[in-house]
Amino acid sequence: MTTALRTEHTSATLLEAAKSDIALDPALRPLWPGARLAGPAYTVQGVPGDNLALHNAVAAAPPGHVLVADCGGGPFGHWGEVLAVAAKERGLLGLVIDGAVRDSAEQAGLGFPVFSRGIAIHGTAKRYPGILGRSVLVGGVVVRTGDLVVGDADGLVAISSAHEAAVLAAADSRVEQETFIVSELSKGRTTVELLRLNPLGD
Amino acid sequence: MTTALRTEHTSATLLEAAKSDIALDPALRPLWPGARLAGPAYTVQGVPGDNLALHNAVAAAPPGHVLVADCGGGPFGHWGEVLAVAAKERGLLGLVIDGAVRDSAEQAGLGFPVFSRGIAIHGTAKRYPGILGRSVLVGGVVVRTGDLVVGDADGLVAISSAHEAAVLAAADSRVEQETFIVSELSKGRTTVELLRLNPLGD
Amino acid sequence: MTTALRTEHTSATLLEAAKSDIALDPALRPLWPGARLAGPAYTVQGVPGDNLALHNAVAAAPPGHVLVADCGGGPFGHWGEVLAVAAKERGLLGLVIDGAVRDSAEQAGLGFPVFSRGIAIHGTAKRYPGILGRSVLVGGVVVRTGDLVVGDADGLVAISSAHEAAVLAAADSRVEQETFIVSELSKGRTTVELLRLNPLGD
Repeated sequence: MTTALRTEHTSATLLEAAKSDIALDPALRPLWPGARLAGPAYTVQGVPGDNLALHNAVAAAPPGHVLVADCGGGPFGHWGEVLAVAAKERGLLGLVIDGAVRDSAEQAGLGFPVFSRGIAIHGTAKRYPGILGRSVLVGGVVVRTGDLVVGDADGLVAISSAHEAAVLAAADSRVEQETFIVSELSKGRTTVELLRLNPLGD
Repeated sequence: MTTALRTEHTSATLLEAAKSDIALDPALRPLWPGARLAGPAYTVQGVPGDNLALHNAVAAAPPGHVLVADCGGGPFGHWGEVLAVAAKERGLLGLVIDGAVRDSAEQAGLGFPVFSRGIAIHGTAKRYPGILGRSVLVGGVVVRTGDLVVGDADGLVAISSAHEAAVLAAADSRVEQETFIVSELSKGRTTVELLRLNPLGD
Repeated sequence: MTTALRTEHTSATLLEAAKSDIALDPALRPLWPGARLAGPAYTVQGVPGDNLALHNAVAAAPPGHVLVADCGGGPFGHWGEVLAVAAKERGLLGLVIDGAVRDSAEQAGLGFPVFSRGIAIHGTAKRYPGILGRSVLVGGVVVRTGDLVVGDADGLVAISSAHEAAVLAAADSRVEQETFIVSELSKGRTTVELLRLNPLGD
C-alpha cells in the first residue's frame, strides 16, 4: 500500500545528525495527520496563483521522486485531488510546496503525502509554465533535484546528495544511542547522567 | 445519525463552479476533524465577548438551517456544549462563526459541525440581544439568510439562493469531468493532455 | 494505562467556576489530539534554545507533578521522546511549555501529554541549568509549584492551591446545573428560558 520510504529516520533525528541547518520553515505542515515522505526531490519553480508549473512537473518528474515546489507561498489551491491522482499514477512519492493546496480529505484518502504552507480553495490560472529541475527556495532552504527530502509530523529537512550517506550513518548512530538511553531510563537513571550533562551548565 | 447534507459537493468544487468569489476567509476552520455542513443560512449579528445573540438565534432559527454568526472575530468562548445540544434539539445543522468557541471535544462527540476562527475558553456576557436574520459579514463574505453555506476540511463557501441551482448544476458537470479525468490518468495520460493545457503557457 | 487526572473538569468549566482570569494563552496547544492533563505544577525556568533546565527538572520533580516550563516561547525542539520517556519513568504527568517541542508522533504513542507553543526540530544547547520550583510566567499567567494545572483540547488553566478546593466545588455545581439544562433541552425548552436570560439584554 504505502510506498517504502527512503529512510525511516525522522526529520528531527536527521537534523541533529546533519549538524547543519537543513530544516525547512516549520510553517510547512503535513496536510493530513500521519503524512510522511522520504525520497529524492524533483524541483519546480512556480508563481503564486498559477499551477501550470505543477501540471508540467507531474508529467516530467521521474518516478520515485518527491515534488518540491516554490509557488511563492500564496494562499491559492495550487494542488488538489486530480494532480494527486496523476502524481500517484506516475509513481511520485509526495509533494512539498511553498504555497497552499486543497482537497485535503481526498488526498488523505489517497494516502498521498503533502506538506504545504496552508489550505486554500481559491483557484489558479494556468499561464506560467514554470522551471523544472532547477534549484528552488522552499521554506527558506535551497533544495536541488536529487536532494533527500524527509517530512513528518515534526517538520521537513532537505539533505544534499553529497552528504546523504554520512547523515544517514550519523542518524543510525544517534538512534542506537537513544535506544540505549531509553532502555536505561527504566532502570531509574536520569538523562543528565546518561547524556553526561553537566547539571550546572557552563 | 448524521443529518443529510443539502449537497455532497465540496467547498472547492462549488467555488470553481461558481466562478465568483464566494469563499470565506480560510482562517475559519472546522472545530474537529471531519466536520462538514451544507444547508441554508440563518444569520445572526453579535458582538465580541457576548453570546446572548446566539442564545436568541438558537431559539428563533427554523429547523434545517445553519447558524451563521458574526461575533466580530473575538477570542472568547461564544459557543459551547450547551448551545450545541440546544441547536441539535431544534434541528439546526451547524454553526459558522466569526469568533471563537469552546467545548471542542464535546461538540465532536455530539457530531455537531462548527467552523470558527479559533478556540478560546474565556467566558462571555449576555447583554447584547443581537440582530437575527439580517445580512452579516462573516469571514469577509456577506451572507444572507437562505444562502447555501457549505463547509469542509478545505474551507467554506456561501452561495446566494438566486444562484444555487446553477452552481450545483455546474458542480455536477465539474465532478463528472473530474471523474473521467481521474479514470483516464490510470491509462498513462497526463493532466496537461486531459485538461487541454498549453504546457508553454501564455 | 492513562494516569488518573486530578480532576475530570474541563479547562472551560474551571475557568467559569474560578471567576478570575486563570486561562493561559490559547496559543499553547495540545501536541496530539486527545492530550489531557490535570495535576500539581512543578515549575522550571529555562531560556530559548537551551534545554538543560528541562533535563534537571525531570531529575528533580516529585512524581505526580506536571512540569510547567518557561523557555521564552522560542521555536526550538526543547523537549522530545527521550525526555518524555524519562518523565514517564519518574511518574510525571505531563508538560506545559512556553516554547516548542518535537517528536510529536512518538509522544502521542507514549500517551505523554504535552501543551506547547509549537513544534520545531531545531536542536538546543545544554548550558543554562535553569531555576527549579520558583514562579514562572507561562502563556501570560504566573504559575507556582503546587498550583493545579488542567489542560485539554480547549486550553489550559492554572489554579492556585489556596483556591483549588473552592474552584473544584464550584465546578461541580456548574456541571450539575449544565447536566440538568441539557436534559431539559430535549423537552423543547430553550437556553434563554433555562438560563433565565433576558432575551432583550441590557
